[in-house]
Amino acid sequence: MSELRQNIATREWVIISTERAKRPSDLVDESRVRTDTRPIYSEKCPFCTGNEAMTSEPTLVKSRGDFSVRVVPNKFPALTADRPPLRIGDDHHRAITGFGIHDVVIEGGTHNRTLALMSVEELEVYLDALRERSLQLARLKEIQYVICFKNHGVSAGASLEHPHSQIIGLPILPNLLRARMSDAMAYFEQEGCCVYCRMWRDETACGVRLIAESDLFASFIPYAALSPFHCWILPRLHHSQFFRISDEEITDLARILKETLARIYYGLNDPDFNILFRMAPTYMGQLPWFHWYISLVPKVNRAAGFELGSGMFINPALPEASAQFLRQVKLPGEHVTLPPIASLIG
Amino acid sequence: MSELRQNIATREWVIISTERAKRPSDLVDESRVRTDTRPIYSEKCPFCTGNEAMTSEPTLVKSRGDFSVRVVPNKFPALTADRPPLRIGDDHHRAITGFGIHDVVIEGGTHNRTLALMSVEELEVYLDALRERSLQLARLKEIQYVICFKNHGVSAGASLEHPHSQIIGLPILPNLLRARMSDAMAYFEQEGCCVYCRMWRDETACGVRLIAESDLFASFIPYAALSPFHCWILPRLHHSQFFRISDEEITDLARILKETLARIYYGLNDPDFNILFRMAPTYMGQLPWFHWYISLVPKVNRAAGFELGSGMFINPALPEASAQFLRQVKLPGEHVTLPPIASLIG
Repeated sequence: MSELRQNIATREWVIISTERAKRPSDLVDESRVRTDTRPIYSEKCPFCTGNEAMTSEPTLVKSRGDFSVRVVPNKFPALTADRPPLRIGDDHHRAITGFGIHDVVIEGGTHNRTLALMSVEELEVYLDALRERSLQLARLKEIQYVICFKNHGVSAGASLEHPHSQIIGLPILPNLLRARMSDAMAYFEQEGCCVYCRMWRDETACGVRLIAESDLFASFIPYAALSPFHCWILPRLHHSQFFRISDEEITDLARILKETLARIYYGLNDPDFNILFRMAPTYMGQLPWFHWYISLVPKVNRAAGFELGSGMFINPALPEASAQFLRQVKLPGEHVTLPPIASLIG
Repeated sequence: MSELRQNIATREWVIISTERAKRPSDLVDESRVRTDTRPIYSEKCPFCTGNEAMTSEPTLVKSRGDFSVRVVPNKFPALTADRPPLRIGDDHHRAITGFGIHDVVIEGGTHNRTLALMSVEELEVYLDALRERSLQLARLKEIQYVICFKNHGVSAGASLEHPHSQIIGLPILPNLLRARMSDAMAYFEQEGCCVYCRMWRDETACGVRLIAESDLFASFIPYAALSPFHCWILPRLHHSQFFRISDEEITDLARILKETLARIYYGLNDPDFNILFRMAPTYMGQLPWFHWYISLVPKVNRAAGFELGSGMFINPALPEASAQFLRQVKLPGEHVTLPPIASLIG
């Protein structure tokens, strides 16, 4: 018997399909060529150390020791800051000139690394760069929304192999976020608390969907996960925007991000994935009812007509079983950054 | 300079990216193996004529001459009707038992055909089967929403080659539709007309985004198309649900659907695509503010982290140029079902 589940924060329904059920291990593609088997340097790669002349001047550089994260303008930007955002068209053809910022975040100069294999210190540098650059964009009065994301692998939309993320500053609020904001506000009005704070308490108390837990963050498969191994990294401290977090939170987030990504890398054999940072619009301050978080979506199955048509997903994996699978992945010692989740959960 | 455009009906924003601009012809994959080059029959295919024993008893059959459309229960259903829909879980873990109907619509018994290559009469049989079966599902009191869709090709999510569509009856209203309904109602309250009727008038009057036009339907690339060659087939007559259309509309829809699909088949070399029928919830009658339509999404590029994160899309093709390209596709004579759009449009 399958089950329909609803995420209380996003109000999205998902079909957890046991008729099509797959064991977590059935979703692992053993034929994948892992990132660490690539060459360490590629002559043609604009992001490798030594090839810096192939990109524009960085807008931001963060370094620790030999490791540097460089933020550079995207060579093929979806939006540019040449002209201010102007309403064009008419009432029924609403348009704005394509104002915006589109940056690439180069995650170090080594071609065959990936976030999962970096040290906690390197991930701190990475997160620090994302935080600082998104804050810079958020301060531009024309920017209404900042999205930080990463495409890892071809099926996740990456067009370059070298590990990198992207930051886009938009002059409008996407419709999806408008709906999320209004749902979160409605929850707050009815229940008197932030729905994301509530979810943090529930998931850490219950534990069956946890992947890892640190002082300040929980990494878990949501009750109504949209796809197998879809996970959220949810902060304990209530901030509406990622770029408001403290250095202490950056350090803690680096640990849990590393452990989560390493469990996916080793457990699922380096699948393609997307990482998204969801947050409130830049023009809003600290909102009592909205909470930033990271959504991490491994690409182990494919969305099709049903998903496009309904906006709903069919997930062939039980979130509780997927979480247990990831908790039990054996990690090489250097990738264990957090104490194990109490054995009673499994 | 790129442009952000908003669809007035769905309120979705899209980035029309001229910096990444592609000419329509650059999006054609010449290496594709077209459907009509496959064998006419496959021994292992459960949907081929002669292999009927490999599927369950049909829930509906519609025939004309030798051509039959059979609707059968999906062998791996996402939802089943074994038990009534029951609320399970608690306030913060909302769930319903997986009640629903999941059918497959077999588009004739020939393995190497596709809707684009069928006759208008055959498409009438196909549309008639979709209409009747969705109406049957809509009459079940437990069903709140019916979605008809088609996945053509692997990248669109098809797991079987044989031409087929699917119908799913859901015991809930997807969140996406809830938002669409409320946006359409808000438009009606403000403007005093259905936003979809208004779009039909604008697109047929202006013509630059039209692909084909018949007495009762317009096929066009929306002003804020989400991806290259994304098209809508929008009815002139106002019905909130597809399953309420008349026989006369079925005949007219068969003609414009065939012509639109043939232009995509020959112009883009049989790309993978999804077809979705969007309509109001089954429990609602004729609503003055909501209008059914077909959305047709060729898979010529890939959604990635940005799309997942923002719910917005980056479209590297100008809708007006894509529509002109499709209008100019040379069709074999038997696939021309409608008069050409006035040459002044191009």
